[in-house]
Amino acid sequence: MAENRIYNFSAGPSMLPLEVLKKAQSQMLNYEESGMSVMEMSHRSKAYDAIITKTQERMRSIMNIPDNYKVLFLQGGATSQFSMVPLNLLQKGTADYIVTGYFANKAYAEAKKYGEIVLAGSSKDADYSYIPAQQELQLNKDADYVYLCANNTIYGTEWKYVPETNGVPIVADMSSDILSKPVDVSKFGIIFAGAQKNMGCAGLTVAIVREDLIGHAKDFTPVMMDYAPLADKDSMYNTPPTYAIYILGLVLEWIEQMGGLEVMQKRNEEKAKLLYDYLDNSAFYTTTVRREDRSLMNVTFRAPNAELDALFAKGSAAAGMSNLKGHRAVGGMRASIYNAMPLEGVQTLIAFMKKFEEEHK
Amino acid sequence: MAENRIYNFSAGPSMLPLEVLKKAQSQMLNYEESGMSVMEMSHRSKAYDAIITKTQERMRSIMNIPDNYKVLFLQGGATSQFSMVPLNLLQKGTADYIVTGYFANKAYAEAKKYGEIVLAGSSKDADYSYIPAQQELQLNKDADYVYLCANNTIYGTEWKYVPETNGVPIVADMSSDILSKPVDVSKFGIIFAGAQKNMGCAGLTVAIVREDLIGHAKDFTPVMMDYAPLADKDSMYNTPPTYAIYILGLVLEWIEQMGGLEVMQKRNEEKAKLLYDYLDNSAFYTTTVRREDRSLMNVTFRAPNAELDALFAKGSAAAGMSNLKGHRAVGGMRASIYNAMPLEGVQTLIAFMKKFEEEHK
Repeated sequence: MAENRIYNFSAGPSMLPLEVLKKAQSQMLNYEESGMSVMEMSHRSKAYDAIITKTQERMRSIMNIPDNYKVLFLQGGATSQFSMVPLNLLQKGTADYIVTGYFANKAYAEAKKYGEIVLAGSSKDADYSYIPAQQELQLNKDADYVYLCANNTIYGTEWKYVPETNGVPIVADMSSDILSKPVDVSKFGIIFAGAQKNMGCAGLTVAIVREDLIGHAKDFTPVMMDYAPLADKDSMYNTPPTYAIYILGLVLEWIEQMGGLEVMQKRNEEKAKLLYDYLDNSAFYTTTVRREDRSLMNVTFRAPNAELDALFAKGSAAAGMSNLKGHRAVGGMRASIYNAMPLEGVQTLIAFMKKFEEEHK
Repeated sequence: MAENRIYNFSAGPSMLPLEVLKKAQSQMLNYEESGMSVMEMSHRSKAYDAIITKTQERMRSIMNIPDNYKVLFLQGGATSQFSMVPLNLLQKGTADYIVTGYFANKAYAEAKKYGEIVLAGSSKDADYSYIPAQQELQLNKDADYVYLCANNTIYGTEWKYVPETNGVPIVADMSSDILSKPVDVSKFGIIFAGAQKNMGCAGLTVAIVREDLIGHAKDFTPVMMDYAPLADKDSMYNTPPTYAIYILGLVLEWIEQMGGLEVMQKRNEEKAKLLYDYLDNSAFYTTTVRREDRSLMNVTFRAPNAELDALFAKGSAAAGMSNLKGHRAVGGMRASIYNAMPLEGVQTLIAFMKKFEEEHK
């Protein structure tokens, strides 16, 4: 790979398009003749206003976000949203959570601080290797919202349908699959995502919030966890993470130049198919995720035993591929192949897998 | 100035040392042969662990932070601390706030959500142009803490003493003067600061918290607003703002190379003295801040009338100096001369002030 860079299969923070990094590098000392770095700009300056406004516009246009949704640039990661969602949305006091993995479970536990939180679906019975079907969900039509995690980074599963909730707003954590494919935003109440997978660098969380869900926060909600003042001031209630927003802007510009989310989806499907087809045809590697729920972003698999898993992780690193070791909760390997991972990265991985299989079968 | 850069007098985000930006630029595509940008690194990787560990060590060594304090890398700006402090520290239920400006007042208003918050001192009577003396404070020895804002960015005042509080912990917002001079950390319970003035870029908040103050958060505290899990996981409870922490590390390296906080203080005093001496000797410009409370970081002044103020802001920008317009709450001009502002920047400003005075007196 160019510039002595390696193929980085990290689950997040993760690989960025080289074009994005090169542009950030070229603008580091002096952004468009402003005489300063974006990092040094007052968030109230004209130069920065143009950056944040354009970034929001690009987000709206690329995701086709309806006008009755606010796009908020926040901090604190998805974990802060685990608190913000119940703090802002619980009115009647109850919400349905569908727990399909580690982070959905974290969100579920945190929400319990604030109301009657119901486990409306789970795939824990099979180690989170699948996504429950519509008929497996026990949804309450009087819930304030239904919560789900759209892509489960650790387990490698992804929702392929949007549940029918009888008008109850759906809150979706899309941290690990936002911008990977087109999404019908109007089917959701809130979509949120940490930026460090498909959107840029850690330290920025984007929340897309339907306007009618804003303005109902509990009295004791910390001001920075109330969507209302943040929406009211267009993410400028206090100093936003200015540089991370700029990097998001560059990533969105790259997506636009690549052709938008349809093209992203096509690329991502092509990359994932290569890997899953190889895994399906291998008698050496196994993958436990139910076929129809396989993530396009995080491909989990394992060698015949833990010793070989460890050898694989070590060998792949030596061969210029990093972070292929699976999460400790699952073991085995995990290849995170977000938007920025080129097809060549996946081809290089498969070539290594073949060689490794030959040597150890 | 080199690289077609300008002297940036912004109150924050603000100027960074050119050396820091150049190093970040050179490492953008490939950090120390890791094959990736710091932005792309898993926060759990060895390479990143070395960065965050070294940054914390440098922070401890430069500020001479005692062992019984945790150094936390947080998000959400000082505004999040306005909530976190009362959520974590109110036990008996009452705290004393000393309101010396805009942000102290914001903190005071936010804390009222969580307990009996007492105005123990204020300089509102004279438009926040001074810092109350010890004998002007009404401190309650049974308060859970005493809150102050060490430097008032908007008004240009700075605390020059640490109040005697009879053992009640002092919480200080040092967003705009941290790292500008040595501070006796042991006199404080909590010191916190947004990074975007003297520490790097927006999106990172550093909190230095005495250990005995950790672990007492209210039940309904959002997990990301409870110091305990963040301290317990050494700022890795979730993905921290990895790149902003890296930039802080570069800034700390620069401070170390410059000679540490004593040298910073000397440089800052020299720069401020040049400006204040000039203002004191001018019959044209005025500054309203009480002499002994003048900030080393933010120098506020005005021309004889608002029209000339506007002309000054415009003319100085044309002359290669940005962001000299004062905050709307105060009017006039404000020169923020943080660590990264070189002496030459202040000399260039004074030369412009002289010329402007000549032309308009």
